[in-house]
Amino acid sequence: MKPFADLSRFIYPVNVAVVGASARPSSQGGRLYENLVRHSRIRGKVYAVNPAYCEIGDAPCWPSIRELPDGDIDVALVIVNAARVLDTLRQCAERKIPYAIVMSSGFSEAGDAGRALENEIAQLCRDTGLHVYGPNCPGFVNVRDRIGMTFSPAFRHDLNAGCIGLATQGGGLGRNLLQGLSHGQGVGLWFSAGNEVDLEIPDFIACMARDPQIKVIGLLMEGVKDGRRLTAALDLARECGKPVVVLKIGHSEAGVRAAQSHTASIAGSAAINSAVFRQFGAIEVDDLDQLLAVTRLLAMGAPKAGSGLCIYTFSGGTAALATDIAGMANLPMAAFSDQTHATLKSLLPDFANIANPVDTTADILRDQDAANDCLRVICNDPHVGAVLFPIPMDYGDVTDGIAQSIIDVSRATATPIVPVWMSRRMGGGFQLLEQHGLQPFMSVSTAIAALSRIWPSAGMQPSSAPTSEDAEHGSSASEGPDPARQQLSEAQSKALLKQAGFPLPLSEVAISAPQAARAAARIGFPVVMKVVSSDIVHKTESGGVHLGIDSEAAAAAAFDSICAAVAQAAPAARIEGVLVEAMLPAGGREVLVGVHRDAAFGLVLTFGLGGIFVETLRDVAHRMIPLQRQDARNLLHEIRHTAILEGVRGQPPGDLAALEDLILQVSAFAERHADTLLELEFNPVWLGPVGQGAIALDALIVTSGHQEARAILETDANP
Amino acid sequence: MKPFADLSRFIYPVNVAVVGASARPSSQGGRLYENLVRHSRIRGKVYAVNPAYCEIGDAPCWPSIRELPDGDIDVALVIVNAARVLDTLRQCAERKIPYAIVMSSGFSEAGDAGRALENEIAQLCRDTGLHVYGPNCPGFVNVRDRIGMTFSPAFRHDLNAGCIGLATQGGGLGRNLLQGLSHGQGVGLWFSAGNEVDLEIPDFIACMARDPQIKVIGLLMEGVKDGRRLTAALDLARECGKPVVVLKIGHSEAGVRAAQSHTASIAGSAAINSAVFRQFGAIEVDDLDQLLAVTRLLAMGAPKAGSGLCIYTFSGGTAALATDIAGMANLPMAAFSDQTHATLKSLLPDFANIANPVDTTADILRDQDAANDCLRVICNDPHVGAVLFPIPMDYGDVTDGIAQSIIDVSRATATPIVPVWMSRRMGGGFQLLEQHGLQPFMSVSTAIAALSRIWPSAGMQPSSAPTSEDAEHGSSASEGPDPARQQLSEAQSKALLKQAGFPLPLSEVAISAPQAARAAARIGFPVVMKVVSSDIVHKTESGGVHLGIDSEAAAAAAFDSICAAVAQAAPAARIEGVLVEAMLPAGGREVLVGVHRDAAFGLVLTFGLGGIFVETLRDVAHRMIPLQRQDARNLLHEIRHTAILEGVRGQPPGDLAALEDLILQVSAFAERHADTLLELEFNPVWLGPVGQGAIALDALIVTSGHQEARAILETDANP
Repeated sequence: MKPFADLSRFIYPVNVAVVGASARPSSQGGRLYENLVRHSRIRGKVYAVNPAYCEIGDAPCWPSIRELPDGDIDVALVIVNAARVLDTLRQCAERKIPYAIVMSSGFSEAGDAGRALENEIAQLCRDTGLHVYGPNCPGFVNVRDRIGMTFSPAFRHDLNAGCIGLATQGGGLGRNLLQGLSHGQGVGLWFSAGNEVDLEIPDFIACMARDPQIKVIGLLMEGVKDGRRLTAALDLARECGKPVVVLKIGHSEAGVRAAQSHTASIAGSAAINSAVFRQFGAIEVDDLDQLLAVTRLLAMGAPKAGSGLCIYTFSGGTAALATDIAGMANLPMAAFSDQTHATLKSLLPDFANIANPVDTTADILRDQDAANDCLRVICNDPHVGAVLFPIPMDYGDVTDGIAQSIIDVSRATATPIVPVWMSRRMGGGFQLLEQHGLQPFMSVSTAIAALSRIWPSAGMQPSSAPTSEDAEHGSSASEGPDPARQQLSEAQSKALLKQAGFPLPLSEVAISAPQAARAAARIGFPVVMKVVSSDIVHKTESGGVHLGIDSEAAAAAAFDSICAAVAQAAPAARIEGVLVEAMLPAGGREVLVGVHRDAAFGLVLTFGLGGIFVETLRDVAHRMIPLQRQDARNLLHEIRHTAILEGVRGQPPGDLAALEDLILQVSAFAERHADTLLELEFNPVWLGPVGQGAIALDALIVTSGHQEARAILETDANP
Repeated sequence: MKPFADLSRFIYPVNVAVVGASARPSSQGGRLYENLVRHSRIRGKVYAVNPAYCEIGDAPCWPSIRELPDGDIDVALVIVNAARVLDTLRQCAERKIPYAIVMSSGFSEAGDAGRALENEIAQLCRDTGLHVYGPNCPGFVNVRDRIGMTFSPAFRHDLNAGCIGLATQGGGLGRNLLQGLSHGQGVGLWFSAGNEVDLEIPDFIACMARDPQIKVIGLLMEGVKDGRRLTAALDLARECGKPVVVLKIGHSEAGVRAAQSHTASIAGSAAINSAVFRQFGAIEVDDLDQLLAVTRLLAMGAPKAGSGLCIYTFSGGTAALATDIAGMANLPMAAFSDQTHATLKSLLPDFANIANPVDTTADILRDQDAANDCLRVICNDPHVGAVLFPIPMDYGDVTDGIAQSIIDVSRATATPIVPVWMSRRMGGGFQLLEQHGLQPFMSVSTAIAALSRIWPSAGMQPSSAPTSEDAEHGSSASEGPDPARQQLSEAQSKALLKQAGFPLPLSEVAISAPQAARAAARIGFPVVMKVVSSDIVHKTESGGVHLGIDSEAAAAAAFDSICAAVAQAAPAARIEGVLVEAMLPAGGREVLVGVHRDAAFGLVLTFGLGGIFVETLRDVAHRMIPLQRQDARNLLHEIRHTAILEGVRGQPPGDLAALEDLILQVSAFAERHADTLLELEFNPVWLGPVGQGAIALDALIVTSGHQEARAILETDANP
């Protein structure tokens, strides 16, 4: 592997030469020269090189690198026609100039001829040891030492130096980051090396990893040229304790195409890139806002391990919204210490919310001292790792005062306070925060997503799909135990549902081993046997289920074995018998069809993958009852893994028509019993191949009371 | 169901009374009165009511509602102490005032006494037909008719009327939305009814659905009080062709708590709410930025069905980034018509990108006419449904000119142009756009997420996890066919890997039916039989696999049956024999362990769920080779559904230690053959319960050539 280049003389040169310097201020050569002689603090000399001039301004201009006077030159800046670049670089190599920045375009980005030129430059670098930065790039900016080896007219505004180091493969987006970091913690060094013929992103990472003033490294990459050098550089950054935040363009196929036509590098597969970033400890983000946000937060300092977030605002809705978004991002919320709680109670009015999120209400904020005290006591709480302060609107004096509080308290605490200015009206409070380097975030979502990326042990676990979080059945039960709830036994439920016309397998209840053997023979082998008991919810765990019983003797043995296992696992449970049931052929898929009562919307039907998948995949969808056929059809396609039902890898397609029928049948049944039914669940439903139907293997009914259970049993027994 | 209230006299009243009007300008009563008499256009009279004053300013003040002079009053605005509210409302009912807005707080949000008061108000409404809006709310704002029945000092700035209707349960966040819509399409009506004792969100939805000037309805909800009324109102909005965008706070458990303590309504389960919104055609969003963005886009008009997005910018990196984000959001990209293509080719320089995304490069933008022509021809292309114009930085004259182009072209086209001002530096271009009502978005991600929500048939399908998009194996093959690639047959692969020490089931290759029968007997029943042929990749689909063979006769029959099926399915395939293999007990889980070569990072190991799950769940994770034990351990927990391996619902835990060993063994083998190995895949790997190991049921090796295949065969045969 090619070693990382030593860039110390590059980033802070003494003498530089500008090849292509121009007296025309609007030309790139003119702007570059002006950036160096007027806006930069070059310690040594800036040599102008251009055969067209004898002097530029008051300074002499030389016809070529070769003809420059003696003396060490650290960096040659080259902004001449692509055809003249190679000769210029040869002269640099002859004069032992260690680095050249080639800003000219017309290389590999422009086609085959340019690519050939670029190959010759690469060869020259290998042969001579010359290091080339570029071509086709906006140059290099050292903000902290005020050195702008760039033609950008915006360089003169790059005044906000800080501990953030940037390496970007695109100049435009790099400039965006610089403008985004123009208040608060700023950028120290910005590398943007275009086609990267020689010096590459890994060289810049390594340079910044070893730089004592750089604390955080931000990367914007369009492709990975050399994976081993990249990972070695990431490793070095990790060893040096410098967090790396990376935005890699090229997630989608369309994005990959655009990246390839823009640079000459190889856009690797997105999943592999992401895995490598994770493996080497880099924080990968999805967009520019996140790159800025995470980098800025890291520059403020990461929250301490074990701490939680405090959400602090003066609007109840805003508190709820931010808490919600933080919850979805798995951010831990801080529990206040008793002391914090007591102090807040003394400071805030009775109706304010003293739990976390803190809703101070707007009134308290009119007393600046009390407002500062509140915020200060929270920042000093050891359980609080950071304070998110969303400000939903510009509210004149009130929000000006909030800004002042944040500024005052920030000075005296190490706990980061993260203000979010949510309004589009950039009022006085916004200006005040920005002027004091506490540049507010502009979106609660962006701030929270960034916090979740840097919070110790938060946010890294992949969250399950948002629609399935609350997919637990019987959630109405969480409102408190309802003594009237009446759960029918499996056997009762199945008997009832079979009479109501639902497709269920053949079955009988046996209360002795011989009876079980005879029942099994009548039903036909193989059979399944399951304990019947209203006291047992999880039959499998209690040893109450035997599968694949293929003889009368086995059925008799299973009866005894089930009774013994259940008696041991649940001594208090009353065993009402053992259900003997036809076993369906292997290869069917398992789904779930259920109904429960939602507090706001009444009976709701749930469909999804069943069996063990209910808990692992949590792949379900819902509809209010009653459903039309189109609703049932849509429901089948709303789950994430419909493909499993449709058949994959040679599996036959499932009998979706039968499944639709079953769903509509459940909907109609639930509607008929809307007054009394609390829950109904078929899980699993065996979904056979087309023509073989959908058969409910297990069933559960919960009603609002004993009478109601009886009513259902009676009315639907003879529908 | 309670019918929706007729709110026509409420939203545009003639005469109003202010109970609690005050002469102190800083009090709520003072601000409310001032908003009405000074900043509103009330067609009739504003009566001040307050026993403490005889007049306020030049106008008389009356001691009570009862003592007001004769005449119709449409709305009574009540801002007195909570204890005096009920009596005031009784007087309103006596005088047949149809509506009252109660802004006072101290009701259900303040505890049991307040809740009792609120119940009495509800009863009064039921008894008398009086409609009450509130209590505990900031009032009602009719921006378009300039009526501010609110105490908010910000009302005087609410000047940007438009076709958007808002109903929000929190006042602070509603104000945020109003400030966010202060340029471009603005808000016509804003309802924010606090505790909603009588008039509720569904009444406001219904009112706006029927209002001819409202085009889009935005909702911010903290809870659902009455699901049936809500869905009926959503139905009405759909019938009236008014899209509804909703942000429902309460996705996370923490969020639910905050919402309940803030309002007195019931926060339903998030999944059920989402399902209902989908069922009734409302567009649900996750945060305030999206609520604003989607509402604004809908006010501009939805893109036509079948059209695609054009991404148009002057920076290559920005084009790639935006295309990437659009691709991840499943937004369709427009393919330009031939005419558009030809026109662009004549207008843009050779090196500009004429495909979509369009990267004009910055230079062309200096010619304002050409820039306008480019943008115009794209907007006129019938395949283009909207143009996203991301502007990555403030670039002085250049970005001022861009803003002017967008303004000029927007006037002459129905195709929405969506500018995104990505920089934090709000330069002249930004100001210009905002002044002309083309309020730029501030984030590419936000704009694209919003576009994907309104694009016909885009974005609605749940996307699979981002890390698994490119999880296809053998992706290096997509670089083009490699004639030297050499795939070993399953039997060769297995023989080699068994000798290299990998755990594989007992197996033999048979080339006749009798031989198969004898092999099966030696191995022990049941066995699996699979065709051996390098020409067949998907053995199952070709009828080349038989499972569960339990006798010598069955094995002989399976041999013949496999040969016949394969000969029919793939007549050209050379059958080398049939593999007879021990069949592992049911109940094992299937995983995948594979290796492939990535262009940037070399050999990469993939682990994930196997069998049919490879394609359906796409639940995989990756690591560069070589792996340490900790890497292998982490890998097992990086997939989404680790729970399936750990055992759920009474399943025994899988043998994760054996799986770790297998992963490390694969890593070591791949490292040993790093020069020649292209792909290695064990799929499925049977993962038994703890102690029963992880056994590879199928194996595949691809090398870089025939010689290399032989070399692997020979070196690893005797390791």
